[in-house]
Amino acid sequence: MTDFNYEEVKHNFDRDALLNSMKTQLSEFRYTHCLRVERVSRGLAAEYGADVQKAGLAGLLHDYAKERSDDEFKQVIKSKNLDPDLLNYNNAIWHGIVGAEIVKDELGIADEDVLNAIRRHTVGSTNMTQVDKCVFVADFIEPERDFPGIDEAREYAEKSLDSAVAFELKHSIAHLIDKNREIYPATFESYNYWINKL
Amino acid sequence: MTDFNYEEVKHNFDRDALLNSMKTQLSEFRYTHCLRVERVSRGLAAEYGADVQKAGLAGLLHDYAKERSDDEFKQVIKSKNLDPDLLNYNNAIWHGIVGAEIVKDELGIADEDVLNAIRRHTVGSTNMTQVDKCVFVADFIEPERDFPGIDEAREYAEKSLDSAVAFELKHSIAHLIDKNREIYPATFESYNYWINKL
Repeated sequence: MTDFNYEEVKHNFDRDALLNSMKTQLSEFRYTHCLRVERVSRGLAAEYGADVQKAGLAGLLHDYAKERSDDEFKQVIKSKNLDPDLLNYNNAIWHGIVGAEIVKDELGIADEDVLNAIRRHTVGSTNMTQVDKCVFVADFIEPERDFPGIDEAREYAEKSLDSAVAFELKHSIAHLIDKNREIYPATFESYNYWINKL
Repeated sequence: MTDFNYEEVKHNFDRDALLNSMKTQLSEFRYTHCLRVERVSRGLAAEYGADVQKAGLAGLLHDYAKERSDDEFKQVIKSKNLDPDLLNYNNAIWHGIVGAEIVKDELGIADEDVLNAIRRHTVGSTNMTQVDKCVFVADFIEPERDFPGIDEAREYAEKSLDSAVAFELKHSIAHLIDKNREIYPATFESYNYWINKL
């Protein structure tokens, strides 16, 4: 599909081997979503001066663990001594923060910039790198995304990476509230930090 | 206007004296708003088995300090050693949490149930008493309130006090997000707690 490769990201990664691993455990839709996020994340990185290889690799792998069972996530939270409050949440939170640990262990990705971008791709952070922002925004605006507000999201992404992050957090929290859902504390902290950048 | 009195709330309070104090420092609109909240709060307390006198007195005094200057609030935060993070917020937060200290000092109200209801009337709490809930909801639904959602808010108040608290927090946070405003952490914690009661 592309000739992206990741030889400059700390260790050499054979992209075809990564794709094979992903295919064995992701639905077709999610697999192709990951490829689209990789491509958009690389594009944003090129545009905004972030590390293209890291942004691409994190984009490719951001949902690597999303189809794991709740039990598996809970086991990883315990075995890795992650914040026990995570146990009160669900897949939507786990697949980023906990999923990064699975990516690290199963795929041998040791680059913390890549892992952090995976960790932060759903909840954001008050302390996001350019790579984090590229993955966060790419996940929201990849070409198959379609929801009320997507045009505005894409406009912000053309204007600045920071404004796109802010809009995404605002939109995501508004959606959770509309659905009467709890908000993960880090998401709320991210919102309070980034809303001033909009 | 009424013959409500507060002789059973720890000390005797002469309601006319309280009204005179309020009149000297509140605009006409806010003064009559306080009277309406007092009345609705008493009604909710009677309906839901809360202490009518405490709910009424806290309803009457909930906005007592709302028209004080930012400087005065900041001085009280410092002199009373309140959470320094409060300094990062504004009148919307201060007039409840900090306002309760002013009510205590200037009016001699020592009843912590009354003071807590004043403290919590804008941000709520994960730990609200029946009196707290009556004031919180009365402030939102008093007869002159008019905003998209007010009918639903009044319906919830007839259904249960808890559902009305939950709806109010949801509505208030959604409004803040719509306006790109930061959310005070305690408000967010209240939302996460109460949204499950809706």
